[in-house]
Amino acid sequence: VRRANLALVLNHVAERGPISRARIASETGLHKSTVSSLIGELEELGLVHEPAGIGRVPTVGRPATPIALASTTTALGLEIAVDGARAGIEDLTGEVRFEAQLARDLRSSDPGPVLDEVATIAREAFAFARSEGLRVIGAGIAVPGLVGLDARTLLRAPNLGWGEVHVADEVERRLGLPTGVTSLSNEANLAALAELWDGVGRDLTSFVHVTGRSLGIGGGVVIGRELYRGSSGFAGEIGHMIVDRDGVVCACGARGCLETVAGLEAVRRAAGLPAAPQAPSETALAEHLAALATAGEPAVLAAVDRAADALGVALSAVMNVLDVQALVLGGALVPLCPWLIPRVRGVLGKDVLASPLAGFDLRTSSLGALAPTRGAAAVHLRAVLSEPWRVAEAGIAATA
Amino acid sequence: VRRANLALVLNHVAERGPISRARIASETGLHKSTVSSLIGELEELGLVHEPAGIGRVPTVGRPATPIALASTTTALGLEIAVDGARAGIEDLTGEVRFEAQLARDLRSSDPGPVLDEVATIAREAFAFARSEGLRVIGAGIAVPGLVGLDARTLLRAPNLGWGEVHVADEVERRLGLPTGVTSLSNEANLAALAELWDGVGRDLTSFVHVTGRSLGIGGGVVIGRELYRGSSGFAGEIGHMIVDRDGVVCACGARGCLETVAGLEAVRRAAGLPAAPQAPSETALAEHLAALATAGEPAVLAAVDRAADALGVALSAVMNVLDVQALVLGGALVPLCPWLIPRVRGVLGKDVLASPLAGFDLRTSSLGALAPTRGAAAVHLRAVLSEPWRVAEAGIAATA
Repeated sequence: VRRANLALVLNHVAERGPISRARIASETGLHKSTVSSLIGELEELGLVHEPAGIGRVPTVGRPATPIALASTTTALGLEIAVDGARAGIEDLTGEVRFEAQLARDLRSSDPGPVLDEVATIAREAFAFARSEGLRVIGAGIAVPGLVGLDARTLLRAPNLGWGEVHVADEVERRLGLPTGVTSLSNEANLAALAELWDGVGRDLTSFVHVTGRSLGIGGGVVIGRELYRGSSGFAGEIGHMIVDRDGVVCACGARGCLETVAGLEAVRRAAGLPAAPQAPSETALAEHLAALATAGEPAVLAAVDRAADALGVALSAVMNVLDVQALVLGGALVPLCPWLIPRVRGVLGKDVLASPLAGFDLRTSSLGALAPTRGAAAVHLRAVLSEPWRVAEAGIAATA
Repeated sequence: VRRANLALVLNHVAERGPISRARIASETGLHKSTVSSLIGELEELGLVHEPAGIGRVPTVGRPATPIALASTTTALGLEIAVDGARAGIEDLTGEVRFEAQLARDLRSSDPGPVLDEVATIAREAFAFARSEGLRVIGAGIAVPGLVGLDARTLLRAPNLGWGEVHVADEVERRLGLPTGVTSLSNEANLAALAELWDGVGRDLTSFVHVTGRSLGIGGGVVIGRELYRGSSGFAGEIGHMIVDRDGVVCACGARGCLETVAGLEAVRRAAGLPAAPQAPSETALAEHLAALATAGEPAVLAAVDRAADALGVALSAVMNVLDVQALVLGGALVPLCPWLIPRVRGVLGKDVLASPLAGFDLRTSSLGALAPTRGAAAVHLRAVLSEPWRVAEAGIAATA
């Protein structure tokens, strides 16, 4: 009961804070002395504090001291993407405190050296946390591939050219972290969770989030405000829906997958643009394509239309099967959304059986390329909100 | 509490019966006198009885009288399909007590006369129930189209040529039934529920059920042992996934829907066989095609392979997005499953990203063309198991 009340009070502060102990008591129905003792425990756990900037709120009785979430408790998000490694630190209040990126071409890469680079960028993040007095309570790692139900093992990532890699073990070993403080997830699933918790999915019960990347297209399915993982954890692989049976062969071995038409590199190639000489940064490429589309470059507009039609075919299938409230386009697709969204909407209107009865809520991601690392960190922060007492057992704190 | 215990005891009898009062008490932890009083109440509600055929079980103490579900409590399932109307009565023990079919060609039909025929077949079912002393506690109606969240209104059924029709109201009015004793559902959703409860889905947590019909292909998505309906109730429309963008135009207006290739009539046409002169019964057509395939008729084998490839494309997309435990082929596809299943499995192996990691559990429906009416009746019978006290309020009893 005490643990349940600890979570109740912490979540009340998360939703309504800064808030006085008295108001927490009246709004939760807990006794005032219970609330005071629970707040004391949460302060000791480093999860709430009395923010310096906010003065005491005068009331009829004695002054009430407002309580807020502690911004010194944070989690780390790491990402291994085809265009490099990313790291971000997010605090309990949802603020991004640190961001870093190592641009690298990781297509057909060797896992060992890549994991070394991930460890390097993670060490930078930890150094920042130490210098700012932040405690890092866990780390999530985002990967562009299929992850085992253990949330530790990558099973298959065709665009990296990786088979089975024990990513969580390898990262923990390189950083000298205790086993279990990191978790591994598919990047598109994490992006969907980030949008659900902190982005354009906050008001939605169900949606499918599509993440465009330099090569790949990922998907995350949210049903009942929870990530739908599937029976083996492999749900949401929208990028590998076949949209053109006579198309080109995908890195996965199948022919005509959505990402062979609507991935950023595929759009670049269809537009007849040369490959970047250096490691292709997906954001730079997407913005370059958007600039050319804005300038009315016909080959780019045609390639973007072709990508939109392929997205429309795949998303019509998704809507016919899942009937979700909304579709969200995200990742590196964001700069191209002004062209993609009207055309995708047109295909949905034609190809979804329920279209005469339904408007289509098609949204642009608000977090874009940051969504996977934010989701990776947020998974650990959300775990603290539901089981605050576990933060005392969390092992990264000592090393950060 | 008493209501919860009433449901607890009834469900215990459903799962473990015939079972003595003493064993119910020891297995549920309820007091023996409480069990006796609850059994008395369930007997009065007509939900359990002491079956005549089963002798008293001798025990150490006084003889124990076994209790079983009453097979006199039943529900009616009705179906409006493209090849006619069907009715079935199922009792609380899961036994089918009555079946009838009116073969009619209902393509581009007028709702009024069709609903008159549905009322006719329903009256036959009620007459049978009266003659057998069965009580009918509700009726489910299956339709091949989109149904509103009210579970009473058909919104769109392209293969019937129907727009919005207040099917539940119309059927109740024709039969003089109290409002609310019938419910309307998509036939493929009901078929999936029937397989979940009484068919090949009993051991599965998640699956997608594909119902082949004379023209259409329906789908039902089961997640967490519940039917997934979608945000507007329109989920599972697998037949309208686009498999051939250059294909023929579907009744829904889109081009190249799965059902334009894998619906039975499409297979017949592709095989160069003449249309049936009379109303096409889907079961007869499916068995005719299977017989020709068994005889090695090349045009039929080619048409079935083409249907299998289209099913494979759509089901690969379903597996990539939903990662369910199994796929079930049902309805009129059942006679063709020996040819369809190996070929669909081949496409899945090629086109599903997780295929190197996953075996595919592809099953043949055990209920076939009966699944929609069984599901329609079972929805009402299941409601009795979860809220037994409502059976006293159910209104059909008096009229049956």
